[in-house]
Amino acid sequence: MNKKTVLDSIFAPRSVAIIGAAQSPPGGVNTGQLFLEAITTFGFQGPVYPVNRNPGTVNGLPIYTALREIPGPVDYVISCIPASGITDLIHDCAAKDVKALCLFTAGFSETGTEAGRLLEAQICDLAEATGVHVLGPNCMGVYSPKAGLSFTSDFPREHGGVSLICQSGGNTLYLVRAAAERGVRFNKVLSYGNAAHIDESDLFEYFMDDDETRVVAAYMEGVKDGRRFLDVLTRLASAKPVTILKPGQTPEGCSAAASHTGSLAGSKEVWHSLMQQSGAVEVSTPDELVDMIVAFTYMKAPQGRNALVFGNGGGASVLATDACASAGFKLPPLPDVIRQQLRNAMGEAGNILGNPVDIIPALADDETYCSLLRTFYGWEGVDLVLLQIPLRGIMLPLPVATLLFESQMNNAIKVGQETGKPLAVIVHCLTSWESCQTAADFRRKCYEAGVAVYNSVHGAAKAISSMMRYYDNRKVA
Amino acid sequence: MNKKTVLDSIFAPRSVAIIGAAQSPPGGVNTGQLFLEAITTFGFQGPVYPVNRNPGTVNGLPIYTALREIPGPVDYVISCIPASGITDLIHDCAAKDVKALCLFTAGFSETGTEAGRLLEAQICDLAEATGVHVLGPNCMGVYSPKAGLSFTSDFPREHGGVSLICQSGGNTLYLVRAAAERGVRFNKVLSYGNAAHIDESDLFEYFMDDDETRVVAAYMEGVKDGRRFLDVLTRLASAKPVTILKPGQTPEGCSAAASHTGSLAGSKEVWHSLMQQSGAVEVSTPDELVDMIVAFTYMKAPQGRNALVFGNGGGASVLATDACASAGFKLPPLPDVIRQQLRNAMGEAGNILGNPVDIIPALADDETYCSLLRTFYGWEGVDLVLLQIPLRGIMLPLPVATLLFESQMNNAIKVGQETGKPLAVIVHCLTSWESCQTAADFRRKCYEAGVAVYNSVHGAAKAISSMMRYYDNRKVA
Repeated sequence: MNKKTVLDSIFAPRSVAIIGAAQSPPGGVNTGQLFLEAITTFGFQGPVYPVNRNPGTVNGLPIYTALREIPGPVDYVISCIPASGITDLIHDCAAKDVKALCLFTAGFSETGTEAGRLLEAQICDLAEATGVHVLGPNCMGVYSPKAGLSFTSDFPREHGGVSLICQSGGNTLYLVRAAAERGVRFNKVLSYGNAAHIDESDLFEYFMDDDETRVVAAYMEGVKDGRRFLDVLTRLASAKPVTILKPGQTPEGCSAAASHTGSLAGSKEVWHSLMQQSGAVEVSTPDELVDMIVAFTYMKAPQGRNALVFGNGGGASVLATDACASAGFKLPPLPDVIRQQLRNAMGEAGNILGNPVDIIPALADDETYCSLLRTFYGWEGVDLVLLQIPLRGIMLPLPVATLLFESQMNNAIKVGQETGKPLAVIVHCLTSWESCQTAADFRRKCYEAGVAVYNSVHGAAKAISSMMRYYDNRKVA
Repeated sequence: MNKKTVLDSIFAPRSVAIIGAAQSPPGGVNTGQLFLEAITTFGFQGPVYPVNRNPGTVNGLPIYTALREIPGPVDYVISCIPASGITDLIHDCAAKDVKALCLFTAGFSETGTEAGRLLEAQICDLAEATGVHVLGPNCMGVYSPKAGLSFTSDFPREHGGVSLICQSGGNTLYLVRAAAERGVRFNKVLSYGNAAHIDESDLFEYFMDDDETRVVAAYMEGVKDGRRFLDVLTRLASAKPVTILKPGQTPEGCSAAASHTGSLAGSKEVWHSLMQQSGAVEVSTPDELVDMIVAFTYMKAPQGRNALVFGNGGGASVLATDACASAGFKLPPLPDVIRQQLRNAMGEAGNILGNPVDIIPALADDETYCSLLRTFYGWEGVDLVLLQIPLRGIMLPLPVATLLFESQMNNAIKVGQETGKPLAVIVHCLTSWESCQTAADFRRKCYEAGVAVYNSVHGAAKAISSMMRYYDNRKVA
């Protein structure tokens, strides 16, 4: 069976079995039950079979005491049992004609022990011999909302165009949740652990031909076959945006990556040069990865590097300027005619009538404010407009600040939609959790209107700049 | 009158008058009323007098139509009237023997107009001639919780040992609120705007002899007199920790700083060398400034650069390692005897028994867990312990994750207090506002127990490293 067919079955299986699932003991957690809950919450259409040596029920479903007892066919198996049981399980899977086995099970090469390495190698051989494809080990597997598959109940149910692979289960959880807060919806997500059998190159190759995947993101601690990876990545990056976070860029981080997924992280310089050659976008932190995905999902690339920054706060405006300039943007001075228009509408004192523009929105009614915005956006000297909202960087109590900023944001989005100029909104300076709640609400309003929303001006400027560089490289290549 | 006496009156005046205060119009905001509300909320002990050309009442207080009509003495005056009225106001202040006038009023050199520059110069001359010291213009003035003075109602009422000066009012608001969430309590805070008359050197000199100020922080866009500033800063930094954020490090940022506070930002290189010479700690963002304040307030400096990182999540541990190594920390491998102890208690699979240690706290009861922690903390090979809590980087639903992490954190704090080894807790991977609420609760538990708490491993490692360098330099000097 070719890998494409196998991966089709992984991302959209007809049926799923969970080995080791049982009712959680009092005060404890049965991971199999968590997987089961996530899959049923997501409304998976096919049958889900809990399997456990001990009979009984879990979440109202009867437990099968062995894979072979399941009446129907099983495409995809999730294993939550200890490593010692895995070779037997692969034989059972082969007998049942299972297409893929996801090993949540850990205790292999990542332990750094000889026994762990041997067991992992043995499992790969067995996978090859039996034709049962193995995901992981030491991974959480698939989140494929369109197919109703997930490994946690709180991921978004809606699907989108972003596919993500991630060697760390924990980072997958964080990345999906953090990106979801910014309006990103995923198509196919895979936590792929040690990548012993199915690896990053297989997955990138698969995404290349997957029409539903429009943007690819990855967190990878190492690469199995550098030559093949460079080839696949270069082809993928010339077809669709790809952005990759690779930790282990310090010697200490390399050794931590080895302890986590048994990965050989390689040197920072080699990786950097590989990324440059491939045309993919390199990022340094999980939050930068999310920022890149937001840029590729919600923004069209500006035509040039002239930005207009507006919003509230003198200090915030100065810091925003440094952030934009560091990312390679210019902030051309506002033309005199626009300055004069602003001065007439808002007065001079307490406002900065330059670029950045720092105006107190309370000073103007909606109509005046929108007409100023039309002038900003319409100015041919700028390619990109950034609205920065320093939520707790103003004097007013949060409820009053919320009203003020919300009307400013709504106007900015409205006029942005009218003019079609690239726009990003930055909601920052969050302090209390109440301000985080307001920010969550603001973010949702932005992405529901199709507008990119960021948590820092630095993050926005860096991601938009990298996106522009990505498309420029693709034009040249 | 010398500047010390004046600054004493600014930070703890006997009485305050607010020029321009009136009841806010429907749908609008009278800033004078906001100042008045903040001061009365803070329980200022002396009289507060609203002054406005139009008689009436505001917040139940009678409005005086002129400063001279106020029966008692007035130490400190806040002006919310337009710039055109300021020269007359200084004369009125002189007649009333006012010690200091805080100009919230803007519209001076920061406008970039010749008229604005002239007016600012004129006001300085008048201040010198009359002996009425001027704060600002274009500033929010004083937050001095011990004296019951504030310019917003939601700052902490309790005082602490940190004094902060800040050329941006908005950044003052953000910095105080953000630091408050991390347990920082302030002694004297001043938003000082254009620094036309009272400047950064005056303030640093004052803090040097102020026993209540134990840590000094600043956001400054420019320096009035470089030679004097270097001298004052060097003396201050040799006596107490000082940390400074200075934006305008790009040419574009310089020009934004000029538009904001009329500051001449100078070159990045000159500033960097001045900071190096002085021994003060340079930071690049508001959040780094808060991280530094937290280090100086809540941590004792580790004796060396060997760190132990523990917490949950393989990917989070790898990223944490990079962050620590980049900041100059070593993560020595866990000795075999401790590894074995961990293995016995927790098992191998799914855990990383190295350094970082990634163990699932649910696997051990409190007693076993605390005994493991005692071994970590007691290990002579480490000088610093970091607990990283990736709140939404685990599979479990937030309420279950909260319980689990909270008990882990409580144990870590408890054992930390027993052993006295430097400890910092990092609560990160926040996504939904509900997770921000849990994080706020965790942070409060940390700082109430006297433990430093951070929002990122990177932020913690960088700040602790800079703190160590600060104390090392002071030892040498």
